[in-house]
Amino acid sequence: MDKIKIGIVGYGNLGRGVEMAILQNSDMKLGGVYTRRDPEALTISTKDAKAYHINDALRMRDEIDVMVLCGGSATDLPTQSPEFAEHFNIVDSFDTHANIPTHFLNVDKLCQKSHKVGIISVGWDPGLFSINRIYAESILPVGSSYTFWGKGVSQGHSDAIRRVKGVENAVQYTVPIESAVAAVRAFQTQTFTTRQKHLRECYVVASEGADLNRIETEIKEMPNYFSDYDTTVTFITNEEFAASHRQMPHGGFVMRSGKTGENEATNQMIEYSLKLESNPEFTASVLIAYARAAYRLHQEGAYGAKSVFDIAPSYLSPKTSKELLEELL
Amino acid sequence: MDKIKIGIVGYGNLGRGVEMAILQNSDMKLGGVYTRRDPEALTISTKDAKAYHINDALRMRDEIDVMVLCGGSATDLPTQSPEFAEHFNIVDSFDTHANIPTHFLNVDKLCQKSHKVGIISVGWDPGLFSINRIYAESILPVGSSYTFWGKGVSQGHSDAIRRVKGVENAVQYTVPIESAVAAVRAFQTQTFTTRQKHLRECYVVASEGADLNRIETEIKEMPNYFSDYDTTVTFITNEEFAASHRQMPHGGFVMRSGKTGENEATNQMIEYSLKLESNPEFTASVLIAYARAAYRLHQEGAYGAKSVFDIAPSYLSPKTSKELLEELL
Repeated sequence: MDKIKIGIVGYGNLGRGVEMAILQNSDMKLGGVYTRRDPEALTISTKDAKAYHINDALRMRDEIDVMVLCGGSATDLPTQSPEFAEHFNIVDSFDTHANIPTHFLNVDKLCQKSHKVGIISVGWDPGLFSINRIYAESILPVGSSYTFWGKGVSQGHSDAIRRVKGVENAVQYTVPIESAVAAVRAFQTQTFTTRQKHLRECYVVASEGADLNRIETEIKEMPNYFSDYDTTVTFITNEEFAASHRQMPHGGFVMRSGKTGENEATNQMIEYSLKLESNPEFTASVLIAYARAAYRLHQEGAYGAKSVFDIAPSYLSPKTSKELLEELL
Repeated sequence: MDKIKIGIVGYGNLGRGVEMAILQNSDMKLGGVYTRRDPEALTISTKDAKAYHINDALRMRDEIDVMVLCGGSATDLPTQSPEFAEHFNIVDSFDTHANIPTHFLNVDKLCQKSHKVGIISVGWDPGLFSINRIYAESILPVGSSYTFWGKGVSQGHSDAIRRVKGVENAVQYTVPIESAVAAVRAFQTQTFTTRQKHLRECYVVASEGADLNRIETEIKEMPNYFSDYDTTVTFITNEEFAASHRQMPHGGFVMRSGKTGENEATNQMIEYSLKLESNPEFTASVLIAYARAAYRLHQEGAYGAKSVFDIAPSYLSPKTSKELLEELL
């Protein structure tokens, strides 16, 4: 069988994660990496694969089955996803929740023209967490859903701290509050305030002579990012930062506490959780499984924008229907 | 919009659970209950719904959109599912793992003839656990999967104990061994023996004057059921049994411990768990969500046997695509 030829657009942490994920799937191979940087300056790990300038991608439309778009949701994907969908099957990890419906329509418009498949907002949230929300809510229509994130690094919050004067480097961990998770597990259906669900732990490297009290206050009082949370600020050295805070762990929980039966008196709990040592590597692994789905759907003649809700689980697996019935059902 | 008219075949714990689940879904209504018993003797909870003899079902083929088959996997479903698939869209909870491929083919044969949809082996295992196995394995192809069941009642094991001479009543709880679950969560990939994963706790009401030592030994040494496990046997009175062991709780965990990244050195954990106060009511809720999928697929012109692997999540939800993108993705 021909291998599925994957193109990677953007070669940051996520793009490199996709490259590693391809190596774990024997039905796939890396067709090329497409970058806005100088392709000669990129070192690709995969032997016999090459980096190209992003402007050369179009020339290679017959050599790539699925383009995996690894840019950011703020500025890259809103334009890149429709542009590439005009010529390629694509998968992206667009994660600005409020703009997903618009992004879906934008990608769909070009997919309808190109007859390609565009699967958007793939990853774990949006993505696997969304899938668990829809299954759980459909099965237990009477109940409450809860999502907790962490413990993990929030890139957005880390960036916000780095913009504070006198901060050289910083990382912010979002931490779910254990007593809240425990209350949900104990079927105590209740509404939590923002502060009751998550803590924010900040590790900050300050520049020499900076006013630490002022930095701490500025962080803790920052609206939207920190003021609604209990926040801790710990000052550390550059060495401590390098030694203990270079990883990008993340994870979280999606829980549904539901009621069934006569008088809806029976408690039922569905819980899904992730514990990830590397957020970008895991997201990359999800993207690659959905790249397989995009390829297969296109082979079957399907086209248009899709979300994870539209994809049957069997499309993600390299196994045949027979193997799935025998081994996994 | 017309409501989806559900028929229930078999009115035991599962059938009654399906009836309760229909009440929680405003796009559905109960069309009829079909029984091998005297229909006059059944008391149906739903107002304006009736019980019919199972032999009268065929006459009502235009009044039922989906038949939910609530019989047992040992003797009912192997014949009932194909028989009903010849005339109706069906959903069943066939759970004899080894016979699933044959059952699928048997149902498919009649569905191909009738152009109806037959979704088999719906519930939580097979069912939701299977879905989690396929997602997790597809996303983390390098890794190990683990399934733990319980704490919960195993009907098969309870039945086996009741066949021991001198036993009046009995219930058996399958209990996952916490240290094994903890080892998996700690990324200690290892192979567990049967004994290392689950305990079996038996609560037994003995008849007066029975030899308790002999009963305990017979249970503990029973091949297949108990001899490979650490088993506890506790003798209780009929009153204690009625007070504390009438519920049918169950649950369990599906876990995937995977590796990603350079040299596959990064640990990633996906965990799904259920904590159910009533196994039959929960299974019924899953059946009803898939009944919605069967109805919709049939509306679209699809037919044939399907498993949960073949059904995209969106088919389970009463929400529109737009609502799903806005609210759940």
